[in-house]
Amino acid sequence: MKALVYEGPGQRSWKDKPRPCIEKPTDTIVRLTHTTICGTDLHILKGDVPTVEAGRTLGHEGIGIVEEVGDSVSSVKQGDQVLISCITSCGHCDYCKQGMYAHCRDGGWILGHKIDGTQAEFVRIPHADNSLYRLPPGLDPAAALMLSDILPTGHEIGALNGEVKLGDTVAIVGAGPIGLAALLTSRFYSPAHIIMVDPDENRLAVARQLGATEIVSTNPVEEIMSLTHGEGVDVAMEAVGIPETFDICQSILRPGGKLANIGVHGKSVDFHIEDLWIKNITLRTGLVNTNTIPVLMRFLESGGIDAESLITHRFDLNDIEQAYNVFAQAASEKAIKVLLTS
Amino acid sequence: MKALVYEGPGQRSWKDKPRPCIEKPTDTIVRLTHTTICGTDLHILKGDVPTVEAGRTLGHEGIGIVEEVGDSVSSVKQGDQVLISCITSCGHCDYCKQGMYAHCRDGGWILGHKIDGTQAEFVRIPHADNSLYRLPPGLDPAAALMLSDILPTGHEIGALNGEVKLGDTVAIVGAGPIGLAALLTSRFYSPAHIIMVDPDENRLAVARQLGATEIVSTNPVEEIMSLTHGEGVDVAMEAVGIPETFDICQSILRPGGKLANIGVHGKSVDFHIEDLWIKNITLRTGLVNTNTIPVLMRFLESGGIDAESLITHRFDLNDIEQAYNVFAQAASEKAIKVLLTS
Repeated sequence: MKALVYEGPGQRSWKDKPRPCIEKPTDTIVRLTHTTICGTDLHILKGDVPTVEAGRTLGHEGIGIVEEVGDSVSSVKQGDQVLISCITSCGHCDYCKQGMYAHCRDGGWILGHKIDGTQAEFVRIPHADNSLYRLPPGLDPAAALMLSDILPTGHEIGALNGEVKLGDTVAIVGAGPIGLAALLTSRFYSPAHIIMVDPDENRLAVARQLGATEIVSTNPVEEIMSLTHGEGVDVAMEAVGIPETFDICQSILRPGGKLANIGVHGKSVDFHIEDLWIKNITLRTGLVNTNTIPVLMRFLESGGIDAESLITHRFDLNDIEQAYNVFAQAASEKAIKVLLTS
Repeated sequence: MKALVYEGPGQRSWKDKPRPCIEKPTDTIVRLTHTTICGTDLHILKGDVPTVEAGRTLGHEGIGIVEEVGDSVSSVKQGDQVLISCITSCGHCDYCKQGMYAHCRDGGWILGHKIDGTQAEFVRIPHADNSLYRLPPGLDPAAALMLSDILPTGHEIGALNGEVKLGDTVAIVGAGPIGLAALLTSRFYSPAHIIMVDPDENRLAVARQLGATEIVSTNPVEEIMSLTHGEGVDVAMEAVGIPETFDICQSILRPGGKLANIGVHGKSVDFHIEDLWIKNITLRTGLVNTNTIPVLMRFLESGGIDAESLITHRFDLNDIEQAYNVFAQAASEKAIKVLLTS
């Protein structure tokens, strides 16, 4: 089969690899029909994620058809159309029992990281009973693909960790795929204001379409303090992963405010606890557990969330190298999510 | 009357001042019978809190007898024995309506800070209806004095912000008055382990008496990781207020762990978000709201909390200068809280 393989920092190739096989009775083999590229894949390619070894097939998002199931798999069968969670979870370790699938003792984020991922014709999914979701009939698989990672991440690590509630003022710093997913899912909780912050006017225009009430492209701290009459925001979401955007978030919190960090960070930040110790703030971090996939799927079924508008580019899976080139230039290409189908 | 007055950095005096008067109908004048010194008072004396002006009477903790009430005060009357909350709150601004008394628009921490405080023979308490609590008959006022600040701070900013729950492993870094108050109040929620961290063996011995299950005086990170079999703690409480102790806390959290910052910090800290972004942690800061004073008072009545053991030294109010000298050398004097009575 063909697979997109990480060949060490700066190098990737679309090449032949052996088709994966069932290794444990809890495994399932899925033939991919839909996959996509995540910002994390670009980080891996830069060499920022040293736990990824050369030779690894990338990708942790996907929709496909069950090809083969291990002896103990009971929730999916051959021929089922399934959504692959970016998080693999056994469902019965201590962390799984607390719903913290991200920290599963025998899983977590392993796809396209510690085991071969979904940017391939076939993928092996361990712990299939807890890591795959059958698609309801009639659901658009391209939209459903957004449930593998970005919609639950925006929801759980943005909206839920930020405790967005009725009437809140929310600022989302970063209008990339994850920031936009946080915007879409924050709307469930009816904040009064969602201020979207990004230097890219195209992304801000998309944010407007998806429900941002205000957009800010320059001088974010001053602009947001002015928009909030000097009070600051109830919820600030960091959806980039660099010290500068973290700093915006910690500077705009009102007393009692929540800072939901969604970004993946490569270095430490200067945390202004000398100002914040007295402000009764809450800061949360997290890798998505994806345990809200089922509830989010209901919104895709009802049309209550416009997931498809996040997909800006479509390619055949065989053209994945071209898709990588486009996604790596997301700003100039006006790319949000790229869809790959086979 | 006599009052302990801040005379600018490094200077204080016990001197004559005019007796306070009712200024607004919501005020009450209290004659102090019991007061104490807080670590914050030492910070003020060092000049660390520039919002305190020279001439200010210090102190934000006290028990006393109501001497005079303003026309609109209805919850206390002349002759009542009352506890003074360190937080003054109007009870009806937007923050008060959310229970965030610390951020009251016309209050918060103002006693001994922005208005004259409780280290005096008399004090004016604004918003008396929401800022004073009548003492139940028979309650030891010395023990009750611990409800002005340290017990609710340990409870709200330590145990509640840390979400201590049944079976948790809790580490409290700093076994001073606030750390010990966090220990006493964390026990309400039945953690399995409370690990107390302090370089001072005397304070650790007190912590043992008050219910610490483990004590650590050196190499705290290594010791705690070893005590927790490499897993880290569910809750880490920072009860000192310096980068070194914050760093211990952020280094010992298990996935899903809570960091409750109780310490008052004067400088920023290096926050290791490059390690913590993936760990699903929660960090909370805060100034006490004191809205758990009533529930804590029930435990003083039932004997369910040993508040009096926090009091190590007793002085006549007229000897407050000597009490300051002892408290400033807390480690060598083996001082936790000093009681001043008149």
